[in-house]
Amino acid sequence: MAHKLGDEARAALLARFPDWTHDPARDAIQRRFQFADFAQAFGFMASVAIIAEKMDHHPEWSNVYNRVDILLTTHDCDGLSERDARLAEAIERLAGSA
Amino acid sequence: MAHKLGDEARAALLARFPDWTHDPARDAIQRRFQFADFAQAFGFMASVAIIAEKMDHHPEWSNVYNRVDILLTTHDCDGLSERDARLAEAIERLAGSA
Repeated sequence: MAHKLGDEARAALLARFPDWTHDPARDAIQRRFQFADFAQAFGFMASVAIIAEKMDHHPEWSNVYNRVDILLTTHDCDGLSERDARLAEAIERLAGSA
Repeated sequence: MAHKLGDEARAALLARFPDWTHDPARDAIQRRFQFADFAQAFGFMASVAIIAEKMDHHPEWSNVYNRVDILLTTHDCDGLSERDARLAEAIERLAGSA
């Protein structure tokens, strides 16, 4: 069972991932990624999918051509948890090396 | 350049794909697919992605765990074209054999 982050931990997470926007209504973080084309965008998604499956923590995401919009939150605890921090970190690493 | 379907061709397309809903505002068709789990859902997406790239015609889509929502329209002609019919047919074939 995941635990919802407390205020201090949430603030630390948002400070750590400045490119992600906080949605207070859902207690979720979101980021848009842009790539050169569809193949690049979907290749990124495939890498994220494998990591997400390994973590057993999955994004809510959409794709239109070269654009990927990712939202992270934890349904179990109805808000952000350490799982989101770990997945965001992995996604950032992938995006940085893309 | 893709050509927007005329009324008769659009009606034929909608009759041919009864599981797809027409969005008149965007002149798009949409369908939700549900799978056993995330791995199945993303495997389906990977197959669709490869076909879409080969057709050079890409869906607008989103995924939440085992659910995949697909919207097809043709940006070039601002509405449905034969490209959407071909992609919908390929997607139906994939979903049927999943």
